[in-house]
Amino acid sequence: MTQLKIIFLGTGGSWPTVKRNVSSIAIKRGGEIILFDCGEGTQRQFQKSNLSYMQIKKIFITHYHGDHFLGLPGLIQTMQLNDRKEPLHIYGPKGIDSLINSILNLGYFKPSYPIYAHEVKDADLIQFDEYHVKAASVDHGVPAIAYYLEEEMRPGRFNKPKALELGVPEGPLFSRLQKGISITLKAGRVITPDMVLGPPRRGRKIVISGDTRPIDKMVSFARYADALIHEATFASDLKDISFEYGHTTAEEAAEIAKKAEVDRLFLVHISPRYIDSKVLEREARQIFPNTIVPKDFQEVDIPLKR
Amino acid sequence: MTQLKIIFLGTGGSWPTVKRNVSSIAIKRGGEIILFDCGEGTQRQFQKSNLSYMQIKKIFITHYHGDHFLGLPGLIQTMQLNDRKEPLHIYGPKGIDSLINSILNLGYFKPSYPIYAHEVKDADLIQFDEYHVKAASVDHGVPAIAYYLEEEMRPGRFNKPKALELGVPEGPLFSRLQKGISITLKAGRVITPDMVLGPPRRGRKIVISGDTRPIDKMVSFARYADALIHEATFASDLKDISFEYGHTTAEEAAEIAKKAEVDRLFLVHISPRYIDSKVLEREARQIFPNTIVPKDFQEVDIPLKR
Repeated sequence: MTQLKIIFLGTGGSWPTVKRNVSSIAIKRGGEIILFDCGEGTQRQFQKSNLSYMQIKKIFITHYHGDHFLGLPGLIQTMQLNDRKEPLHIYGPKGIDSLINSILNLGYFKPSYPIYAHEVKDADLIQFDEYHVKAASVDHGVPAIAYYLEEEMRPGRFNKPKALELGVPEGPLFSRLQKGISITLKAGRVITPDMVLGPPRRGRKIVISGDTRPIDKMVSFARYADALIHEATFASDLKDISFEYGHTTAEEAAEIAKKAEVDRLFLVHISPRYIDSKVLEREARQIFPNTIVPKDFQEVDIPLKR
Repeated sequence: MTQLKIIFLGTGGSWPTVKRNVSSIAIKRGGEIILFDCGEGTQRQFQKSNLSYMQIKKIFITHYHGDHFLGLPGLIQTMQLNDRKEPLHIYGPKGIDSLINSILNLGYFKPSYPIYAHEVKDADLIQFDEYHVKAASVDHGVPAIAYYLEEEMRPGRFNKPKALELGVPEGPLFSRLQKGISITLKAGRVITPDMVLGPPRRGRKIVISGDTRPIDKMVSFARYADALIHEATFASDLKDISFEYGHTTAEEAAEIAKKAEVDRLFLVHISPRYIDSKVLEREARQIFPNTIVPKDFQEVDIPLKR
């Protein structure tokens, strides 16, 4: 089973504080890291975590406010100083080409490994080997994208009693059927996988809202996710300011999590004004009990559903 | 007396480590901060120090390798989010205009306070109210500048016995003479300041080498400085690599400090390879005993000389 985990590298909004760096979330899947946003200081957050930035294969940027991407130039340059040869793919909304071009022309730097910029728009689905990343435009005043990473469907659950009943002996034939391969019994009878497998099961799904006002479409976008990582810049007493600046309150994020029937809600992009983020957690838990305001460097395993 | 101190915000070279952030040195003089270099994460180093980045009036960049300037965009944007109205002056070698222009056009950001870029070349002297900053080109493969900040001359030492001998009564007339104002005694005799003051004394002087190979001209540039902050990326066993990459060893920096007859030598831009920097300190102290390898956040007062 491929391990899937979230590492919160930067959980603060707008500017860094002593406790929280600006936005960056790493998803580690097997030996690969997929990074969502890369605020200033992200390379140093990697140094302080157990992760290696050399394992990053793809970076997804939600939007081009400084606290979400200004760690890119330093990270790109440090990868080079550490002899990266492997290509790096960077995805983001409209403008990613010129942004990456500007970043690669800051000061005296010539990349010696390939860096590819990919523009992403609403409803795009980017297919990788064992998972895909889906995009949805959100409401933040500038072009902004929410993403989810979802693993491909897994074969259905293996019905062991049924297999035995059909005369399949316990052992290697079980695993062939589990992998979707038909087998022939000694008696000449052919057993196809659909005879012993339940319906295919969905892969794990992690949603990253980026910065956005609360939007209805987030409910369908996040439906049944294992983890919804939603911004919650403010508590609900600042609901008006929150809306004005294109943000979501903890309460509003919890409403979305509840309607979307996700497993767990993680609140990030916490405003520097909250020295103690308990107020946000309490507020959200009234509506969606399975809410956490992660600290920087907190790691969360996403287990396979049974 | 105006307080003058150095705060080492980033003492590491090339890329950040857990212990050392990349280059940035703050000089606090009275209520003003003058910043020398601004590597990625400098705004967060401010947060973790006792300093406010809102007090920065001028930033001097030594050269345009990423570890010396990539903290500028985030710092500039955060100043704005914190309602800065005051102008910010940024100095650097050839290319500062286009660099600042690129930085101000990264992502969605429009500065609402004035930012001025000033190009600096070898031997420039930039005059401010109570001090000046002098520039010298150095040897680092790309345009690179060393700076020193030097306070203006102070009046000479007050010769109290001489004043009493001339019949000046102790009290307010003493301080008028100390300020350079002539006085007339009751007997009608005029006492001029030069009669009771020694020769004018030099202000305090702090030198920042930036990245450079060891160069002869640094000796005269740093002459009699209160503090020479010199890069020492490597120890002397890596002298060849050090030279190849345009850097200085701890031993070489100590030779310069000795010849320049400075008061104290501070070694910075320590390579990430040195988990323990004692080797650099030991090596330099063999040649120049008053050497320190400061830690990040270390503060050093520069007292007035008697």
